[in-house]
Amino acid sequence: MAVPTLLVLDAPGQEPGPRLGRLTGRATVLHTDGPGLAARLPTADVLLVWDPTSDAVRAAWPGAGPRPRWVHTASTGVDRVLCPELVASGTVVTNARGIFEEPVAEYVAALVLAMAKDLPRTLELQGRRQWRHREGLRVAGSKAAVVGAGPVGRAVATTLRALGVTVAVTGSRARPGVHGPEQLRRLLTRADWVICAAPLTESTRGMFDAGAFGLMQPSARFINVGRGELVVGSDLVAAVSKRWIAGAALDVFDREPLGPDSPLWDVPGLIVSPHMSGDTVGRLDRLGEQFVDLYELWAAGRPLRNVVDKKRGYVPLHD
Amino acid sequence: MAVPTLLVLDAPGQEPGPRLGRLTGRATVLHTDGPGLAARLPTADVLLVWDPTSDAVRAAWPGAGPRPRWVHTASTGVDRVLCPELVASGTVVTNARGIFEEPVAEYVAALVLAMAKDLPRTLELQGRRQWRHREGLRVAGSKAAVVGAGPVGRAVATTLRALGVTVAVTGSRARPGVHGPEQLRRLLTRADWVICAAPLTESTRGMFDAGAFGLMQPSARFINVGRGELVVGSDLVAAVSKRWIAGAALDVFDREPLGPDSPLWDVPGLIVSPHMSGDTVGRLDRLGEQFVDLYELWAAGRPLRNVVDKKRGYVPLHD
Repeated sequence: MAVPTLLVLDAPGQEPGPRLGRLTGRATVLHTDGPGLAARLPTADVLLVWDPTSDAVRAAWPGAGPRPRWVHTASTGVDRVLCPELVASGTVVTNARGIFEEPVAEYVAALVLAMAKDLPRTLELQGRRQWRHREGLRVAGSKAAVVGAGPVGRAVATTLRALGVTVAVTGSRARPGVHGPEQLRRLLTRADWVICAAPLTESTRGMFDAGAFGLMQPSARFINVGRGELVVGSDLVAAVSKRWIAGAALDVFDREPLGPDSPLWDVPGLIVSPHMSGDTVGRLDRLGEQFVDLYELWAAGRPLRNVVDKKRGYVPLHD
Repeated sequence: MAVPTLLVLDAPGQEPGPRLGRLTGRATVLHTDGPGLAARLPTADVLLVWDPTSDAVRAAWPGAGPRPRWVHTASTGVDRVLCPELVASGTVVTNARGIFEEPVAEYVAALVLAMAKDLPRTLELQGRRQWRHREGLRVAGSKAAVVGAGPVGRAVATTLRALGVTVAVTGSRARPGVHGPEQLRRLLTRADWVICAAPLTESTRGMFDAGAFGLMQPSARFINVGRGELVVGSDLVAAVSKRWIAGAALDVFDREPLGPDSPLWDVPGLIVSPHMSGDTVGRLDRLGEQFVDLYELWAAGRPLRNVVDKKRGYVPLHD
């Protein structure tokens, strides 16, 4: 059997490439950047999307000629990869489930605790050498609504519960431990913390808009670790600026990197971070190992793990 | 029986006084500030130290004349209250055990997570409108040494363990679940997080000095929520500045409030907060209720709770 061709969509100038030494002799590895992808796509049996920020696959996929039979993305979200032609094709798509969930959950806990203890203000006062005592909030006993019942949302719920938070999780449909979308409005009105960890699909795009923020308590805080497009940015800015809600933290944005002229950078009460919630030291090694493990299954003709339901736009539970 | 006289050492301009309505008719309540304390002390049966930052008791206690039979301080630490004459006297001292432990533990968790996820730097970059992706550290799987085996240290250990941290607690003597002081050096060499939650006594004063910081890993971070005097400040500044350790956070200081000319304010990698780790919304009501509950025990001649071992300088375990 011919050695398969593995095409790696690199992140030039951003991330070192995956360590693929274990595949020596078992794959012909080609590298490409975004602009070069379309020309190389017909030659590839497997496409590894190593650059999680690239929209190149969605742009390059439609067209004539053979296409890879398997696409793996080194990310949780697959919205940047899926296009109608890929969804309709026989190509299998897998994601990096298992790498980012717990780091994201810790990051959300960091934001919740930092906001409860007024840490951003403490750092600001420190910079001005000002001693100004304040009272923090208890996190234990507070209420969170986690929107998104996938592995990330569930990991966030587990970590917040470990801190004594009462957590309700909502998903696209009700099931044990998960509230259906019809409960979302009620939960938003009660939550101290609203955590968005939903996948970006046509039914979730823009779900956090003025209507949603208007339901929240004035003491509530909103955290987005899903995708930027889940939130109507101007509505969030208005909600924070007008004190409809007490604060927010965004780790994801419509366009990344966020440009220096974005109005989001300096909204008082809004924390902006550069899409790093899931990224911890060693993750690139873990992502590389995960892909090689999957490649070995694929090459042996065995069932893959982390297979995306392309119509839904995420890996279903119990995959 | 005569109505007892309750003298309250207020915190003028800082905290509203305790709500003592439940004691109407059962205590003659007098208020004093620090300078007025010495003159009123002989008239009091009970002294409530409502200002946790005051050194007035230690200064006013020695001298002639009757002294209150019971002193309660609305704080965990009693170092600011105890003087040799009070220790030698028959006066009972109680503290606010039960109010601050879990808030302090959450505050420590907030600092640990914020440092692991590089949140101070994120906020600094946000202020400059700079998108600079970084990798955080996992908190789960890291190691903490908690120094201080009282209720605060134990609460810190519980909360960090809930986040997946491996925690070793050291105290003044070994007992189940607590390492003795002879283990401290070994534990300091291994810890990612060193949390100081010890009481200030003659054997703990200055325990975190250049020798202690020199044992820690270059990746370690130090957090002090005990008392400022447990740490040799200039040694800590040197350890952080010279990168013997990766960072630190101080919530307590030799002199509070920290003056605007302190060198601690602007050491890169050092977070300074205004002695607020245990202070959450509603605490003044809880402190007032706790005192009134104790007063009712005292007035009924029943055993008090939270009784300080004055020779040791803290409330022993299983009190």
